[in-house]
Parts: sequence; C-alpha cells; structure tokens
Amino acid sequence: MKEKIIAFIANKQFAQLKGYLQALNQADLSEIIDELPPEDGALVFRLLDKDEAADVFSRMESETQEKLINILKDNELKDIINNLYADDAADLISEMPAIMVKKILANIDPQQRKDINELLKYPEDSAGSIMTTEFVDLKMDMTVKESFERIRKVGRDTETIYTCYVIDNARHLMGVVTVKDLLLSQYEDKIADIMETTVIKLHTLDDQEDVAKTFDKYDFLAMPVVDQEERLVGIITIDDVIDVMHEETAEDFELMGGLQPNEDSYLKSSVWDLAKHRILWLLFLMLSATFTGAILTHYEEAFSAIPLLVSFIPMLMDTGGNSGSQASTLIIRGLATGEIETRDVLKCWWKEIRVALICGVILGVVNGIRIAIQYQNIAVAVVIGLTILLVVLIAKSLGCLLPMAAKKLGLDPALMASPLITTIVDALSLLIYFNIAVFIMHI
Amino acid sequence: MKEKIIAFIANKQFAQLKGYLQALNQADLSEIIDELPPEDGALVFRLLDKDEAADVFSRMESETQEKLINILKDNELKDIINNLYADDAADLISEMPAIMVKKILANIDPQQRKDINELLKYPEDSAGSIMTTEFVDLKMDMTVKESFERIRKVGRDTETIYTCYVIDNARHLMGVVTVKDLLLSQYEDKIADIMETTVIKLHTLDDQEDVAKTFDKYDFLAMPVVDQEERLVGIITIDDVIDVMHEETAEDFELMGGLQPNEDSYLKSSVWDLAKHRILWLLFLMLSATFTGAILTHYEEAFSAIPLLVSFIPMLMDTGGNSGSQASTLIIRGLATGEIETRDVLKCWWKEIRVALICGVILGVVNGIRIAIQYQNIAVAVVIGLTILLVVLIAKSLGCLLPMAAKKLGLDPALMASPLITTIVDALSLLIYFNIAVFIMHI
Repeated sequence: MKEKIIAFIANKQFAQLKGYLQALNQADLSEIIDELPPEDGALVFRLLDKDEAADVFSRMESETQEKLINILKDNELKDIINNLYADDAADLISEMPAIMVKKILANIDPQQRKDINELLKYPEDSAGSIMTTEFVDLKMDMTVKESFERIRKVGRDTETIYTCYVIDNARHLMGVVTVKDLLLSQYEDKIADIMETTVIKLHTLDDQEDVAKTFDKYDFLAMPVVDQEERLVGIITIDDVIDVMHEETAEDFELMGGLQPNEDSYLKSSVWDLAKHRILWLLFLMLSATFTGAILTHYEEAFSAIPLLVSFIPMLMDTGGNSGSQASTLIIRGLATGEIETRDVLKCWWKEIRVALICGVILGVVNGIRIAIQYQNIAVAVVIGLTILLVVLIAKSLGCLLPMAAKKLGLDPALMASPLITTIVDALSLLIYFNIAVFIMHI
Repeated sequence: MKEKIIAFIANKQFAQLKGYLQALNQADLSEIIDELPPEDGALVFRLLDKDEAADVFSRMESETQEKLINILKDNELKDIINNLYADDAADLISEMPAIMVKKILANIDPQQRKDINELLKYPEDSAGSIMTTEFVDLKMDMTVKESFERIRKVGRDTETIYTCYVIDNARHLMGVVTVKDLLLSQYEDKIADIMETTVIKLHTLDDQEDVAKTFDKYDFLAMPVVDQEERLVGIITIDDVIDVMHEETAEDFELMGGLQPNEDSYLKSSVWDLAKHRILWLLFLMLSATFTGAILTHYEEAFSAIPLLVSFIPMLMDTGGNSGSQASTLIIRGLATGEIETRDVLKCWWKEIRVALICGVILGVVNGIRIAIQYQNIAVAVVIGLTILLVVLIAKSLGCLLPMAAKKLGLDPALMASPLITTIVDALSLLIYFNIAVFIMHI
C-alpha cells in the first residue's frame, strides 16, 4: 500500500491517489502517514475526506501528530480538532508540548473546549480520564420512534450509538437500552417499558484497572460513568478499555522484568531513556546482592576446607530464584486479574508449601543421587539434597507471601517479582547451605 | 447478593427470589451459581427466564456446568443447549468429559449440531475455532428497510447485530454495513450504495494471536471470517477476542516465569497439577546450572589463593541475570505485540549494546569504587568493574538475540525469558570473571 502511494506522489497523480486512499481503512492510513516523510504525509492527509481525517489523525503516533499540526493551516487544523471525539482531543492535548497546545486551543470550538476541560480535570488513570462526554441520551417518556430520531440527530458525533442511556431531567441515570432492544421493539413502545433498569455503572474516580476488570466480567461494549451525585457525565467504550488492558499488562511485564515502567515503545525510546529505566533497579539489586556476598565471607573456612562446596553455589542460587519466580508469577497474575484476593493468603501459602515439598523432594533427590555418584561423597549429597528442599520451600513461600504483602500495603505486587525475590532468596539459600554444611560435615 | 439469595432459599420464598433474580445481571448470576451448593444453584438456575438462562449458563465455570448438566432433566437441558450461541456450545462440548458430551448431543437440535460440528473441525487456536456461525447476512439489492426487517428476524439469535455482512449468492463476502450506517441512511437506500467495500477479513486458519492483533489495530467490534474460497463462514466478536488476549498474555507470563502454561486458574488447580507444570523447568534449569558449577571447580586454585573472590559470585550472577531479563522482557513483549519484527534484530542489538555500555559503566564504576574503599584492594576493584561491564554487555546481547532467534525458528520467544537467560549468563559471567582475575592478578 505504502509503495503505491509513494509512486502516486512521485508521478504527481493526485486524482488517482485520492481515489486509492478512499478505499483504505483508517488504521492503515494512519500507519502509512506515520511512516511517510512529513511533507508527503501532510499531502496524503489533505486528500482525505473531512470526516475520515479526524479518525485517521486520532490513530497516528504523537510525533506524527505534532509534525502535522506544524504543517497544517489554522483552518485545516480547526476542522480536525473539532471533529475529534472529546476523549481523543483531551489525550492529544495532554501529550503535546505547550506550544502545540496553544496552537490547538486557538482553533477549538467553545463546546469542544468545554468537553475537553471537563475531561482534563480528572486524575490520570481514573475512569473520568478515559471516558468520552459524547453519547446518546434518551428520556423515559420517549417512544422507540422518537429514540431513533434522536439517534439519527446526535449519533453522527458520538463514539457509539449501540448503547443509549436513559436519564431524568436532573441527568440521573435511570436505565439503559441497546439499539438491539430498540430494533426488536415496536415503534410506539415507550423507553420506560423496554429499558433495563439494573445498570452496572462506573464512577468518575474509579481506577482504570478496575474499569477494565468490570468490562471483562460483564462483556459490555460501553459503560456509563456517573459523578458523585450519580449524574451521568460520560461513557467508556470497549476500544479504550482494551488500550488500558494493554497498558496495565505492559506495566506488569516491565516491573516483573526488573524495569521501571516506560510508556514509550521500545524502538522509539532513546538509548538514554532505556538505560534510565533500567539502571536504578540494577544498582539497587546489585548492592543488595553484595549482602549475599558478605554472607559468603563468613564461611571462608568452610569452603577453604572443602572447595567443592563453592561449585554448588550457582545451582542453589538459580534453583531458589526460579522456584521463587514461579510462585510469584502466578500470585502476581492472580492478583492482577482479580482471581486471587489478599484474604486468600493462607490458602495460597498452604498450596505453595505442598507444591514446594513435591518439587523440593524431587529436585533434592535427583541432585543428591547425581552428586553421590559423581563425587562418591554421601555427606555432600545429603547437604545439597536437604539444602535444595529448604531453599525451594522458602523461595516458594516468599514468592507467594511478598506479592500479597505488597498488595496489602497498597504497593504494586509486580514489584515483588523475580528480580527482588531472587536477591532475597539468594542470601537465604547461602545461609541455609553453609549452616547445613557446617552442621553435617562438622567443618 | 449471594446472602440475600441464600436467605430466600432458606425461607422458601421462591416468588420473591424469582423477582430478585430478574433484577440481576447475567455475569453476577453465573458467579453466584458458581459459588452456591449444586442443588441450590440448580434451583436458582431453574427460576431464570429461558432466554437469560443460556447466557448465564455460558458464563459459568465448567465444573458448575458439569454439575448442572447432571442435575437438569433432558427437556430442561435441551432448552439451554439450543439457546447457546454456537461458539459457546462448541466450547462447552470440547471442555466436558465424554459422558457429558453424550448427554448434550442427545438433546441437541439438528441445526445447532451442524453448527457445532462445523466449528469443532477447525484446529485449536485458529480463527475458525473462536468464531461463531450466527450473524446477520444481507444482500446487495436489499433496501435499508428490508435490512431492518432481516435484522429483526434473525437478530434475536445472533451474537451481534451491529455489524452486518453483505454476501452474494455464492456466499462470497461483498461488503460490510453497520447498524449505524443503516440508521443514518434513508429507508429506500440500497445496501450496495451504502456498504463499505474495503472489508478487512480473517481466514479460518489464521492464528488466534494474529486475530487479536488485527482487532487491536482496527478497533472493530466484530470481524468476518472467510474460508479458502473466500466464502463467509462466520464472525468473531470482540468479547471472544478479549478472552484470547488474556489467554495469550497469561501464557507469556507463565513462560517468562519459568512455568509450563496451564489453562486452569491458580486456585482451582490441584497441588499436583501446579507441581507438574513447574518441575520440568526446575529440573532442566537445575541441571544446566550444574555446568556453571563445573566451571567453578576449574578455578579452585584462584579462589583458594584469594577467597575474597568467592564473595562476589552472587552479585555478578544476579547483575548478569537482571540485565539479561530486562532486555529479554522488552524484546519478548515487543515481539508479542508486533512492535518488533525479527528483521529489526540488528537495530535492537545495537540499541542494547549502547544501553549495556551505559549501564555497565555505571554499575562497574560504582562497584569498583565501593570495593576499592571497602577492601583497599585496587586489583580486585578493577577485576570486578571490568567483569561487570562485560557481563552486562553479554547479558543484554543475549537477552535481545535469543528471543529473536527463537521467533525466527518458530518457537515462542517467551521461552527465552529470564530463567533460561539467567542460567546461560551465569556460566558466561563466571568464565569471564575468573579469566579476568587470573589475567590481572596473576594467580
């Protein structure tokens, strides 16, 4: 697609280009404009139909948006900005540098400006910040026929028309009715009779993670958002919720990989930026690991007497780390999806203890036998076997308990993922190891 | 809600219970029935309206479904099964034990049976296996008015009515039209004139992960699925795609945490099952780590001469592991979301090398200074500083290259996550460490 467009531009076949663009989907168009040089991108963008242009614009990367705003004339910009859905316009404004915001605000309609200001006042990551203020509202005494008329009137500018919200004169949410309900009813039916009165709703200050969980549970395409006085102020649509799900998942992956969360994409992030999001964790974990090293200096006598003991250190550390991260991964995921609650802590711990016993015994026996055969040294085999069992027990317990404790303390459980747990388990493993060795082998 | 229902049952207030149930949402109802004792659950279930019952049933956990099928009479079961959407019915059949499947199939309508068989023939995780065969199809020569009539006729039994698909007589997909388009058009307009002819479609054998990516890109609520002859055979709706997204994310988390993927939830999984999904990785990684240990035995002389060297082993291993998993987490995520392609390998590697240089120099210098001050030993400080720099370089390179190589070989990149990379980096770290030590300190 991109190649064809470049060819049209090179040959100055703008009429053909315009025809070709009309057949493309908005998502593809925005991707192509993202990849073209700014001037060519602006050229393509100007050939789009007005109502399509705003949709394509809202899907572009913010860098491309910034370049386009610089290139476009005021009246062109005006058309775009005022055709954006209010939530997309608010996102745009919160992402642009101050000078761009000034240019945008100068070209905005009073109504759109009011809507945007409304959205910008909600805290980041709240339901209010991801909702849109444009939706179809109906009254209880309307008929199905009148409702369709209202949908035709306001529907062109709203993000979804398929779920309509029924409000009273004080804008309190009274019920919800879908276009499916409307289509399957008679024209003269009253909204009051066909609307669903059990409305699952969100509040403006709900956390976006909870919003995503609610959508997940109920499979809605859109949900209403009410303020503290229970008045309908906006709706959230499924496409924005999917973005939230991706954001939250990415954040968990990053925390669990020992990174500070970074909203920019990998390829777009600068080397300095990537380093900045890694170095603090690395420094912190490195300095923590020196404590583990300090433990070793206490047992110099032991490994000077039996140097073989040193060679098991990596295996014990890795096995402990891996056992711990297995448990923490499942617990962190369970807490994130809502399947596990902090009140399940004892149930989970007891589960991990039993799993640890099974895994620990198998690993301990396998390794014990290997060592007994390879080194013909039963004492070392027993020391290693016992150590592994205890290390797995402690690692799985910590992998279960630390994320739960974090959640209880209001921290993100993903902080307690493998990097941190590995460091803690390492220190404990070595303590256990040398104490058992000293005890059994009378070093 | 659950408490109220239990109270109604205890007091045998079934009329009130029925009224109360009508006000509840299906997702809540299925959750409550999941938690009630089977007999009470069946009692509640029988009080539901017929058209609601199938929806509630499809949302229950499969254990509850199994118990209910056992309790329900044949004619009751018949109503449920035939009111399920075909894709939910197919899921049910593929999850139930053979004896239940027999009971289900005995109570199924011929049309529903045909639909289910159609769906069951597609490979697991393909677009065909998650699509549904029930949708609204229109013809090009229909008017908007006729289309609404068709929607009213077939709409009650289809999962979504909001996207309608236009087909010719051979069932080839000719276009797509949304209810929004229909509502904003005149009654006498022809479908051929208002339909969108650029249809983004899926093929029955597309991988479900690619399906999810396509939905993500285009923000559709439903997409058409065509067979190899480009005939429309089904549609996929956004709610099923969200389930796929969760499944794929869960799988990545599990692989990256060193677990074999397990579709059951944590709390529902037995201890044996949990242990089974962990032990293979643990065993494999433990035995791999013994190679690292074997490396250490080669350098007994070195650490017998300078026992202090042993105390830095944990810190070097952890720093290497963490550096590697930072890189692999970002690369694996990028590959999963489609942001990074295997052809970006050199670009990514060069990025990681520069990030590694920044992080490695900072970590090496900080640690070198600490050691120089703490132990008054410049030689050791230099050895550790240099080792850290090299270890971080190698760890980040492997963290970048291994997932990409896995992808290129058709393996899941998430296999190359921290557990495996840590093990490999550990062995390399110690080799580097002792070689540098021997060289600089002339041991």
